[in-house]
Amino acid sequence: MPLTPIDPRLDPGVSAALAAVAEREVDQVFFVACGGSLSIMHPAKFMLDQHSAALPSDVLNAAEFVARAPKRLTKQSLVVLCSMTGTTKETVAATKFAQSAGALTLVLTTDPASPLAEAGDHAIGFEAPYTTGVPIDAKNSNYARIYQLVLGLAKIFDGSDKLGALMDSLEALQPAIDRAHTHFAPLFADYAPRLAKKDVIYTMASGADYGAAYSFAICVLMEMQWINSHAIHANEFFHGPFEVLDENASFVLFKGLDSTRPLTERAETFLHRFGATENILVLDAAELDLSGIDAGLAGNLVPLIFFDTLWRFAYKIADLRDQEMLEARRYMKKLHDY
Amino acid sequence: MPLTPIDPRLDPGVSAALAAVAEREVDQVFFVACGGSLSIMHPAKFMLDQHSAALPSDVLNAAEFVARAPKRLTKQSLVVLCSMTGTTKETVAATKFAQSAGALTLVLTTDPASPLAEAGDHAIGFEAPYTTGVPIDAKNSNYARIYQLVLGLAKIFDGSDKLGALMDSLEALQPAIDRAHTHFAPLFADYAPRLAKKDVIYTMASGADYGAAYSFAICVLMEMQWINSHAIHANEFFHGPFEVLDENASFVLFKGLDSTRPLTERAETFLHRFGATENILVLDAAELDLSGIDAGLAGNLVPLIFFDTLWRFAYKIADLRDQEMLEARRYMKKLHDY
Repeated sequence: MPLTPIDPRLDPGVSAALAAVAEREVDQVFFVACGGSLSIMHPAKFMLDQHSAALPSDVLNAAEFVARAPKRLTKQSLVVLCSMTGTTKETVAATKFAQSAGALTLVLTTDPASPLAEAGDHAIGFEAPYTTGVPIDAKNSNYARIYQLVLGLAKIFDGSDKLGALMDSLEALQPAIDRAHTHFAPLFADYAPRLAKKDVIYTMASGADYGAAYSFAICVLMEMQWINSHAIHANEFFHGPFEVLDENASFVLFKGLDSTRPLTERAETFLHRFGATENILVLDAAELDLSGIDAGLAGNLVPLIFFDTLWRFAYKIADLRDQEMLEARRYMKKLHDY
Repeated sequence: MPLTPIDPRLDPGVSAALAAVAEREVDQVFFVACGGSLSIMHPAKFMLDQHSAALPSDVLNAAEFVARAPKRLTKQSLVVLCSMTGTTKETVAATKFAQSAGALTLVLTTDPASPLAEAGDHAIGFEAPYTTGVPIDAKNSNYARIYQLVLGLAKIFDGSDKLGALMDSLEALQPAIDRAHTHFAPLFADYAPRLAKKDVIYTMASGADYGAAYSFAICVLMEMQWINSHAIHANEFFHGPFEVLDENASFVLFKGLDSTRPLTERAETFLHRFGATENILVLDAAELDLSGIDAGLAGNLVPLIFFDTLWRFAYKIADLRDQEMLEARRYMKKLHDY
């Protein structure tokens, strides 16, 4: 395998990681994290599934990964881990566990001095508005970095090269997000007063968007607003969950642009048929101006747009509920003995 | 690969399927289904992960599988599908899609004349009380058959042979379930009146039990009782969902016996610390008499015990809510145009 840079525009951390990967035999990828960081592993696997015939992959919660101890974890495994702060203890432990099996570990974190960065074989940095408090450019987000990694793997192991298209698309991403904020603002203003009063709000998505729906449910609605929630896969909806649908039921549906979009269209039709439109918030990526984003990668980038814009919706809800966002936690970052 | 029977006690359908598998090169397994049938694919993968270093596997909803069209789906793929009635249209479509890629399809269904049985390369029968209305022996359940398949794969591709232990354990399973019904009866009688009044009941599990928790949430609580629910992974709980916990929050926690049990013990401690014991129903497999079940496989069989016993709990709740079980559906099997 060549040690020359995969693509000169890649993030240097990703480039260095891929150079190390290219020297190894790899027959399994594990995407491992917890909570919000686990949520980006689902779209990473979705992208790898659609771009690589060579690499099988698993997405596992970090504690589950260690306790399960999959037999396929060997020195031919590549384990990709992420923790925003780099302090998530289960993810640090998973890194060490993977190394003890001889696997190569690539860790994504915002803090290069964190325990996770220290533990991993190769650390890849990213930016998060959540840690800096200031706006970031989405081209430096966790999604942006893991997608570079995934398409780099596809280049090394499958000879497919979409990295140029990805790097171009990432340059166009933040402007697309900024336009999406404007586009969704009236929708959010309309729905926030009603959804702020709900005790239960489900999210629903498929394909590349499932992770964002999961993260919005568990990290925003449940964690920060104490609203009962969970992400329902748009087709699984029809195999049980849809029976909770009535005129009071609330859903946030992510209609993305990847190849699974028809699953969400079917769900939308059903939601509108038996639910009340006023309680069904539909984010449709087809309405957005995605100029400069490669059509073949738009579906992969849409979840970032949805998640970023939904933060503003969450703040609106928090305001109406008189509940702070990041401060509104009973246990996380307040308790330290669990 | 030998064509002689893998184990003379195996179900004949499983034996025939494994004989066909043994003649092929296989480098990927896909476990594909919808809803309740998808729920058994999670423990199937859990078992394969712990018994095979040779075979990577994915668990995918059937519609997601087709729309995603993973590049690893090739003639070297083995696709295992399940639908109890054999009529689930997404699963039938997934079978044909897999065949069009040259993959070998093994289908599990209770009806050998169903569209799924017709579509699959090899059909494996099983029994379900749900379809016959009469009690079955759990050794003939979907779990029992798919576990024979999984350990058969581990024998063929990894040389590990736990099939004898599995067949012995399956003989001991129904008696263990019968004893569990008796054991849990007082617990269910105690909790049913309180949980029947709840609008939201979460289920929680890890490892081999996650699928049963998922199925109880979406197919029983949501589908049949219109109670808001969803399955939370026992470690993911600590990365967001736990913030909804207060004295009114209701959980059904599955404490199993596989290697992930410590994850559920940690969750239990937290649930009891900040929730109200009266709203936290804990099923602990360590309390059960599992005589005759191999210690190394007990963790895999516990979810059948939990799920079977929880049906009685569900009927108690239904009774208290004045809501029928199987008849209490608004959409499923009543609408036919969605």
